[in-house]
Amino acid sequence: HHLLRNLNNTGEQVTLTSFLLHQPFSQNEGPTAFKNTALAEFVIQKRSFNLLIKEYSKKDHRNMDCFVCFILSHGEKDKIKGVDDECVNIEELTSCFTGTNCPSLAGKPKVFIIQACQGMSRHRSVTVEADSTEHLEEDATPSISIPDKADFLIGMATVEDCQAFRNPKSGSVYIQSLCKKMEFRVDFITILTKVNQELAEQEFGGSKQMPKITSTLLMKLIFEIPQCKMEK
Amino acid sequence: HHLLRNLNNTGEQVTLTSFLLHQPFSQNEGPTAFKNTALAEFVIQKRSFNLLIKEYSKKDHRNMDCFVCFILSHGEKDKIKGVDDECVNIEELTSCFTGTNCPSLAGKPKVFIIQACQGMSRHRSVTVEADSTEHLEEDATPSISIPDKADFLIGMATVEDCQAFRNPKSGSVYIQSLCKKMEFRVDFITILTKVNQELAEQEFGGSKQMPKITSTLLMKLIFEIPQCKMEK
Repeated sequence: HHLLRNLNNTGEQVTLTSFLLHQPFSQNEGPTAFKNTALAEFVIQKRSFNLLIKEYSKKDHRNMDCFVCFILSHGEKDKIKGVDDECVNIEELTSCFTGTNCPSLAGKPKVFIIQACQGMSRHRSVTVEADSTEHLEEDATPSISIPDKADFLIGMATVEDCQAFRNPKSGSVYIQSLCKKMEFRVDFITILTKVNQELAEQEFGGSKQMPKITSTLLMKLIFEIPQCKMEK
Repeated sequence: HHLLRNLNNTGEQVTLTSFLLHQPFSQNEGPTAFKNTALAEFVIQKRSFNLLIKEYSKKDHRNMDCFVCFILSHGEKDKIKGVDDECVNIEELTSCFTGTNCPSLAGKPKVFIIQACQGMSRHRSVTVEADSTEHLEEDATPSISIPDKADFLIGMATVEDCQAFRNPKSGSVYIQSLCKKMEFRVDFITILTKVNQELAEQEFGGSKQMPKITSTLLMKLIFEIPQCKMEK
C-alpha cells in the first residue's frame, strides 16, 4: 500500500509524482522487490488474507492517490490461498476496493500484482514460425460519477489453470521480471507488457508461464521519479 | 478477420502497416464500425458461433499478421449467445486460436472485441469526490517458443455480471466509442483505455457500463494507416 501524492491528472494519464512506501510486515523475509524503484512487495503470511484486505479497504485513503497491493501466495483458478490454507476468490478480494466498498479510493487507480499459481497445468509451449462515428448514446448523460468497478489494474503471474514459477533463491520469476522492467515515466501497462514478453520467451523446467493483464483503468498510470523517501 | 501485411516488428511493438478487410456476411445490417479506419465489425447472426469460429481457426493464416474478431451478441457471465441461443464460453472460443490449436497464428496478435452483456446486474455508480534485479531464473533458458496462450487481447464491453448497452439506432455504445477513439499509430490498449474513460463518464438509463481489457500481448499493437483498400 502506497502513499501517493501530487497527483498530476492530464485527462489521458495519471502521473504519480511522489509516494511513500508502507509495508505491512517489517519481518518480511522475501526479497524486497522494487527496491530500486520505491515500490515494495507484500508477503502476506502472518494473517488471513480476508481480514488483512478488509482492514485495508476500511482505512481512510482520502490522502492517497493510488492503491498498490502485491500478493505472493499459492493459488487455484481465480483464487489465492491465505496462510490458513483457505482459498479466497480474487474477485472477492478486489471487490473490497470498489467505489462503493471503499469510497475514499473511488476514482483512483487500484493496482493488484498477484504471484500465485492458477491451477496445476503446465503451460504448453508453441513454436513460432520464422517468419468513428459522430454521436453516442442519446440517453447517455455526462456525469461526475463512474462505474463501481472502474480503475482496477490486475497483473496476474499466469493465465487461468496454469502454474506460476518461483526460483528457490530469487523468488517469483514474475515479480523479478517486473522489478527488472519497472521504469519511471512509462505507462504501467507498457511495463507489464514487457514482463509478458520477457517471461514468454523463457522456459521453466520445460514449461511456459504467461502472465495476464486485466484493466478497467480510465487513464494511463505513470509513476514519476519519487520525491520522498521510503517509510520505515 | 483481417489480412495484415508488412509487419514491422521493432521488438517492443508490432506495427501493422497494411491490411485488407474481410467480412463474413455481406448482408450485415449493423452499422459498419471502423468504416473510417479500415476495421470492420462482424455481426455473427447466420450460423452458430462454435462452427464459425472453429472454421476460422482451421484456416491457413500463414500469410496473415494478425487476427481481429468482433463479436456482437447477447451473453451471460463469461459466455456469449449464438443465434441458436446456445451459450458458448468465451475462453472456449478464444482457445480455438491458441498456438497449439491454430499454429498459423502462433506469435501473432489475436484480438477479440466482444459486445455482450455479462449478466443482468446494472452496474452501480459511484460518485467521485472533488478533490530491477540483475538476473532471472537460473533454469530459464531463452527459446524461440512462447506460451500457448500468448498474444491475446480481449476487449469486453463490460466487466463480469453486468449489462452492456445498445442504442436502438446507433447500436452498441462500446463499439461506437471504439470507432470514435480509434486512431492509427497509437497503441491499441491506449485506445481501449480511452474507451473505458468515455463510457465510464456516461450513464445509461441510470446505470453504468465498465468495459474490461485483458491482455497477454507480448508487444504493443499499433495499426498504421492502411496501404490497401477494403475488400468487397
